[in-house]
Order: sequence, then structure tokens, then C-alpha cells
Amino acid sequence: MRNLKMTIQYDGSKYKGWQKQKYGESTIQYKIENVLSKMTGEDIQIIGCGRTDAGVHAENYIANFHTNSELTVNTMLDYLYEFLPEDIVVKSIEDTAERFHARYNAKSKTYLYRINNNKFRNVFTRKYAYHTDERLNLNEMRNAAEILIGTHDFQSFTNLKPNGKSTIKIINYINILEKEDIIEIEVNGDGFLLNMVRIIVGTLLEVGKGKLKSMDIEKILDKRKREEYGPIAQAKGLYLKNVQY
Amino acid sequence: MRNLKMTIQYDGSKYKGWQKQKYGESTIQYKIENVLSKMTGEDIQIIGCGRTDAGVHAENYIANFHTNSELTVNTMLDYLYEFLPEDIVVKSIEDTAERFHARYNAKSKTYLYRINNNKFRNVFTRKYAYHTDERLNLNEMRNAAEILIGTHDFQSFTNLKPNGKSTIKIINYINILEKEDIIEIEVNGDGFLLNMVRIIVGTLLEVGKGKLKSMDIEKILDKRKREEYGPIAQAKGLYLKNVQY
Repeated sequence: MRNLKMTIQYDGSKYKGWQKQKYGESTIQYKIENVLSKMTGEDIQIIGCGRTDAGVHAENYIANFHTNSELTVNTMLDYLYEFLPEDIVVKSIEDTAERFHARYNAKSKTYLYRINNNKFRNVFTRKYAYHTDERLNLNEMRNAAEILIGTHDFQSFTNLKPNGKSTIKIINYINILEKEDIIEIEVNGDGFLLNMVRIIVGTLLEVGKGKLKSMDIEKILDKRKREEYGPIAQAKGLYLKNVQY
Repeated sequence: MRNLKMTIQYDGSKYKGWQKQKYGESTIQYKIENVLSKMTGEDIQIIGCGRTDAGVHAENYIANFHTNSELTVNTMLDYLYEFLPEDIVVKSIEDTAERFHARYNAKSKTYLYRINNNKFRNVFTRKYAYHTDERLNLNEMRNAAEILIGTHDFQSFTNLKPNGKSTIKIINYINILEKEDIIEIEVNGDGFLLNMVRIIVGTLLEVGKGKLKSMDIEKILDKRKREEYGPIAQAKGLYLKNVQY
């Protein structure tokens, strides 16, 4: 049986996220499984590298699936390109090791958050970046980000209810860059809890706006309890950029 | 009476172009006049720097209007920002000379055309760039563009029916640049006939795809007749970038 690894780009605006389980047809997973099943005549189940929230985008989402189909990867790519909706594109497919698992084998993930920080919204990025006219203090945001780097219990930075499972995660880096009129926050870590990236960004935005100080971050981490310290940042600014295996 | 000059950004996807005259409510001019008239209590008529086709975008469209209103420009900007649809933003307003006329005083205009030249469409630029998977020969396109620079009769490059008016225009430059996965064609000229930029780009694309040779451009110009040499390029890739006064 073949095991195929896909790299997927999607505009999440119209979807309830990646995962089919809860939201059925209005998910990216459903759309792709549906086309793959028609293509192969099999009941294809995709293994995604993780969930993404409703409205979140992806540049290079990784997923794999098993099939007995003998179609070439180019034939599959063309079929998917023709039959998927215009906001989902499978960019590449490759045969991979039988044991490859898109979720279990992921060593780390990189997320990108885009912010349009001008007096008025930019009409061309209005669906793809968070807009704020409050001038952000990037240096304070960088100081705050520094505190989050490393191994921490991120219970204060997730909407996941405590369920006995570990909420300890490793953040490898957080880069905050200014690119023309867009500010990008890039977060890389070994794994992320429910809403974790959006709450980290929401908290950093509070720091940038002067509503929190960078040293408050330490106290928030220590609480080990989500108490709405930082609001959850809007989904439309978030992209899963890459997955490292 | 005050004469106010506005700089406007708009996503033209949903509109039938700038000009109200023919298409009424689904035009950018109508939307802005409507808000300005409510704001001032006057019947405001806007003078735009020119027409843009249905679906064409603008980074810095220039328009002016006369009013007896004593509102500050900041109050006007905030009012417009609140009441215009989210795909139209008036970026700045300034008091200008009584005799300033956005169309008559324009010395030249710069248009930008964006092309996504990859095997598969990019989902994030799908509404804001033309996609083709045919690898474009940019050098041949640059050679062809060179021939169009200067003063020429552009009757072969407009869908305007001959009406006795001069179709002689000056193209100052055409720059073709590669920026990551987007190719940009920037065209600057003293004025443009109906559909002229889109026909120039459509013709350059034919050259890039090898369906025309750069030296065919000379023959097409000489014909002084529109004979569908180059198809009209899709509106969604075109932006009015700047107007020079």
C-alpha cells in the first residue's frame, strides 16, 4: 500500500478549520478526502499534521494518506487541482515511507501571524491580516516574546480545559519582523495547544499596545491558568507556515 | 468654496469600475459620493482622475470634490472610514488649489499588473493576480515592451472605436520585475485609452508564452486597428498605482 505525503495551501476564510470530525463538510479535510475518494474509488482517510482553527490559513500544511491507487503523483495533483475548490491547492504529493505519520512525526511547526498596523485598514489584506491603528511597540513585544521562549507550562495560553494531559511545550523562537506595512510574528515550537498561537499573539499585542508590560508575561505563565490575560487574536491573521519532520 | 483632493485605495472585485455615469450604484464613485453627500448635506460630485474598468483595483486613485463644508480633513477621513464599504478606503484628504482638477491636471499615470506564474494558482492572490502556468519568457516580454515605449498611435491597443479623436499616447516606461512568486508589469504613460493597459499586458503575455514574437509588436502598432492580436488581460490583476501631477 502506498503512503502519500501532501503539501497543501489553503485560504481558511470560508472553513470551520481543518478537522472533519466536528464540523463535517465545511472543513478542509472533508473537501480533500472527498476528492481523493472519488479519484481512487477508495474511502480515503487523511492524517493531518494537526488541527487549525476556523478561519486560519495554511501555506504548507502537511498531511498523508494510504491508498492502493497506482495513479502517478502528477495525475493526482492535476485531478485535485481541477476538482478542489479554488481556495484549496495541493501543491505537491510524494510517495513516502510506510510508517510516516503527518501528526506523530512532526518535530516542530512554524506559524506566522500577519498584522496591518496603519491608521486605516489595507483593503487588499483585510481578509488576510489583523488590522490595528494603535501603534505597536515592537521592542516591548520582542522583550515579552523572549520570556515565552524555552520549555514552559502553557496552561495560561490555551483554551483547552485542564484534562490531566501535559500542557508543557517548547517554543524554539518567536521572530517579530516589519515588512513594508505588515508586521509578521513567526512562532516555532514543538507543538501547540488549542488556540495557543492566537493567545500568545493576542497577549503580545496587548504588550505592543501598552496594556500589559513585558514582565507581566512571567506572572501570566506562573498562574498556570487561563484568565483572559490576552484576548485571542483574530483567526484571519494566522497561517500555518511549515512543519518540520 | 473648498476643493479637496482625495487618495483612495479600493479592491475593485465587486464593482463595475470607477465611473457612476453608466453603472450607477455598483461603482466606486457612487459609493464615495453617497457618503460625502450625507456627510456634508450637499450634493457632492466627485471628479476622478479617470475611469477604471470593472474589477480593476487602485492603490492610490486620485479624485477631487468641491464643498462648503467646514469639517476638518481628519473628521472627513474618519467619517468616510466608518461609512464606506470595507473594500474602499480614502487614505488621505487635503485642501488643494481651487483650480485643481483630478483628470485634466494629471500629467501621467502608473499602472501595475500582477501575474502569478506558477504551476498552481496561489490561493491568497487568486483574486488579485492573473495566474498562468505557462512559463513566461520575461526577456522577450521586455524586448516587446521596449517597442511600445515612446509616442505612438495606440489604436491597435484599445477597444475604443475610432471616433475622430487622437489615439496618440506616450508610454514613458514599462518595467517587468520578478518579486518572489509574482511578476509585476509597471506601465507609465501620459494617458490611456479604453482597455489600453490590459491589451498591452495581454499582448506582452502572448509574447511571454511564445505565441507572438517581440518584433510582431511593431507590425501590430503599424496596423492602427484593433484585431485581437493580444487578448485583453484579466481585470483582477490590474491596479492603478499612482497619478503624477
